[in-house]
Amino acid sequence: MRIFGRPRTAYAHCDLPCGVYDPAQARIEAESCYKIIEKYHGSKEDIFRGRALHIKEERAEMVKHHLDVLWHDYFKPEHLEKHPELHDLFWNAAKQASKVKASVEQADAAKLLDMIDKIDEIWRATGGPEKTRVLKAAKSA
Amino acid sequence: MRIFGRPRTAYAHCDLPCGVYDPAQARIEAESCYKIIEKYHGSKEDIFRGRALHIKEERAEMVKHHLDVLWHDYFKPEHLEKHPELHDLFWNAAKQASKVKASVEQADAAKLLDMIDKIDEIWRATGGPEKTRVLKAAKSA
Amino acid sequence: MRIFGRPRTAYAHCDLPCGVYDPAQARIEAESCYKIIEKYHGSKEDIFRGRALHIKEERAEMVKHHLDVLWHDYFKPEHLEKHPELHDLFWNAAKQASKVKASVEQADAAKLLDMIDKIDEIWRATGGPEKTRVLKAAKSA
Amino acid sequence: MRIFGRPRTAYAHCDLPCGVYDPAQARIEAESCYKIIEKYHGSKEDIFRGRALHIKEERAEMVKHHLDVLWHDYFKPEHLEKHPELHDLFWNAAKQASKVKASVEQADAAKLLDMIDKIDEIWRATGGPEKTRVLKAAKSA
Amino acid sequence: MRIFGRPRTAYAHCDLPCGVYDPAQARIEAESCYKIIEKYHGSKEDIFRGRALHIKEERAEMVKHHLDVLWHDYFKPEHLEKHPELHDLFWNAAKQASKVKASVEQADAAKLLDMIDKIDEIWRATGGPEKTRVLKAAKSA
Amino acid sequence: MRIFGRPRTAYAHCDLPCGVYDPAQARIEAESCYKIIEKYHGSKEDIFRGRALHIKEERAEMVKHHLDVLWHDYFKPEHLEKHPELHDLFWNAAKQASKVKASVEQADAAKLLDMIDKIDEIWRATGGPEKTRVLKAAKSA
Repeated sequence: MRIFGRPRTAYAHCDLPCGVYDPAQARIEAESCYKIIEKYHGSKEDIFRGRALHIKEERAEMVKHHLDVLWHDYFKPEHLEKHPELHDLFWNAAKQASKVKASVEQADAAKLLDMIDKIDEIWRATGGPEKTRVLKAAKSA
Repeated sequence: MRIFGRPRTAYAHCDLPCGVYDPAQARIEAESCYKIIEKYHGSKEDIFRGRALHIKEERAEMVKHHLDVLWHDYFKPEHLEKHPELHDLFWNAAKQASKVKASVEQADAAKLLDMIDKIDEIWRATGGPEKTRVLKAAKSA
Repeated sequence: MRIFGRPRTAYAHCDLPCGVYDPAQARIEAESCYKIIEKYHGSKEDIFRGRALHIKEERAEMVKHHLDVLWHDYFKPEHLEKHPELHDLFWNAAKQASKVKASVEQADAAKLLDMIDKIDEIWRATGGPEKTRVLKAAKSA
Repeated sequence: MRIFGRPRTAYAHCDLPCGVYDPAQARIEAESCYKIIEKYHGSKEDIFRGRALHIKEERAEMVKHHLDVLWHDYFKPEHLEKHPELHDLFWNAAKQASKVKASVEQADAAKLLDMIDKIDEIWRATGGPEKTRVLKAAKSA
Repeated sequence: MRIFGRPRTAYAHCDLPCGVYDPAQARIEAESCYKIIEKYHGSKEDIFRGRALHIKEERAEMVKHHLDVLWHDYFKPEHLEKHPELHDLFWNAAKQASKVKASVEQADAAKLLDMIDKIDEIWRATGGPEKTRVLKAAKSA
Repeated sequence: MRIFGRPRTAYAHCDLPCGVYDPAQARIEAESCYKIIEKYHGSKEDIFRGRALHIKEERAEMVKHHLDVLWHDYFKPEHLEKHPELHDLFWNAAKQASKVKASVEQADAAKLLDMIDKIDEIWRATGGPEKTRVLKAAKSA
């Protein structure tokens, strides 16, 4: 029963429960923060604005969670050796997500997106997409 | 402070808290189920296998949650008119996710991935990526 | 050890984890929304009103969750055949619950209650109470 | 905007976030435990049985949560005066729910249902249904 | 493999999942409420104040949860016999935590801390620290 | 209304929602893992052992969460300067918590406790107890 057809050894690096990792999870939540801030400024209604702030708080918390999972579970010592900025990058991204919770400046959310994009670059440089995602093309194999 | 530079009217279709939608969220969790089943069959250790089943249960629950959000909040009556299969597609995908909770057949997880890919196609056909995601390219605008 | 005394075959239709289903779960949360809106209008205190809006948001989210579970797990293709309005009913109820999150109009919560009551009627028409609840009377059997 | 038409003073006893209380919430979860144990014994498959135990654990936790909310938030000192057994009843029900987590004896779940029914009786004796639920009949008022 | 070196019989009183209990868990969350109220009064910014109220609500909910666990799972009938005030103490602490949710008076949070300290005293009097915590000193044994 | 009597300026370093931090939160959960493994080996019952593994998984997840909060929110650049091992310490502790999820070796949980104790030392060296906890003694001030 090998529908997707990728070699089993590809997963050897990865202990359960590492599963599948993709910075897209953190990015989607950070994009929500970015858009919520835009909508916040586009409205004059107090109830709408209150909800926007509260929902942003939850979305930024999810950013932190998804970043933590990547940092804890995807990245390994060999990655850190090649990318020694990894720890600071994640730490600063988590602190930026905290800032986004408190802020209504869209620039703060944009900066968080940039940080996630840097993490995404390292994830790609370390073979993340091939090692962790299940490719669509593979299905027809 | 308009760093990403997309026109505000682009979001008019979308009530808070719709935020950002992408079937990738459901797919990543379904890929986890797919891989967990593979690892389950690759191990003979009871503790590992028990954890695999339990973690799969949680991941499949997340698939259902992300699909529900798309169905409730992203899709609108005008989408249903053009894609009358929408309700059945989501209903069957939710039922397939339930099946994946109970199953250790990788084909069941692969079928769930196919269903999510069909939802993804409709999301794309309805302009989902442009309407809901914040593009990287936009940042330099 | 058969205290409640209902025949085992009664559960054959129902895969674990279907358990026990009752639209009362969604209704109780929707009633909370209804009452919270009433209290919101009955108070002039900002802190109280802020809390009311926030708690309503959570309760309406629970309505959506309980409706999703019913739609995914209780209702089967044979029910849909007899009640072809099922999909639209659930979809519109989920959208109404989203509206209740954003609204402070009690009529919006009342409309949500009506929709849940229609789902409840179908649940009853399909034998829900007998098939899924554990009756008190049965205990003395 | 008074669709349900019940006098506002009826809620005076009740601070936000008391909302709506009904022991039915705890009962539905406890019924799940009861049925899950039945299904557990009706199956010989290890995977099914493992899932049954795990889902029962979650459902029994929800019983405890719903009982806690009733005890903390619905019941008031005047109720305790008339029903001095209240504290022991809740304490023992919580301990019974813990037992149900660990047990595969259906009698343990049946005993938990009995305890919830006793709590339900006191809830009714203290006017719980009228004070906390939103009646269907009221809608046409 | 007995690194911490405490006799196994020490845990005989304690069914899984009792684990480790310490009123410090409830106290830390209640201290958060106390400090959040102080910061609330120290700020004039609406967004900051809104966040403070919302985070306090979550922290007070955690106080209730940790107290419930202690009451359900740590305390046993023999403790109640020696400390008959136990039920009222927990009930009133839960109600005080509800009050802290609604209040911006620091005295309300201080009163909650006092109540937790009384529970802590009983926990100590019943041998809680020795029975439930894993001591640092033990590690070198 | 200043019952605890500590100077307001003491909190200036700390943005909401930093609240109160204490590595005791992570330690209590890690102690649960330690004890659960001991109980696991002390039992021969399959159901008990299955529950032990599952509850350990949840407790270890809580360890990770509490460590993340400390790392993100309590520790500041000036702490990192004095304690450059901070990032590695947290990263390795998170990876050790993942190991404890998978392991039934008590030595793995003991090693996690040691790591948390090292974090606790740095927390103390940076003035954590005075800066973040609300002291009992302060109440009588």
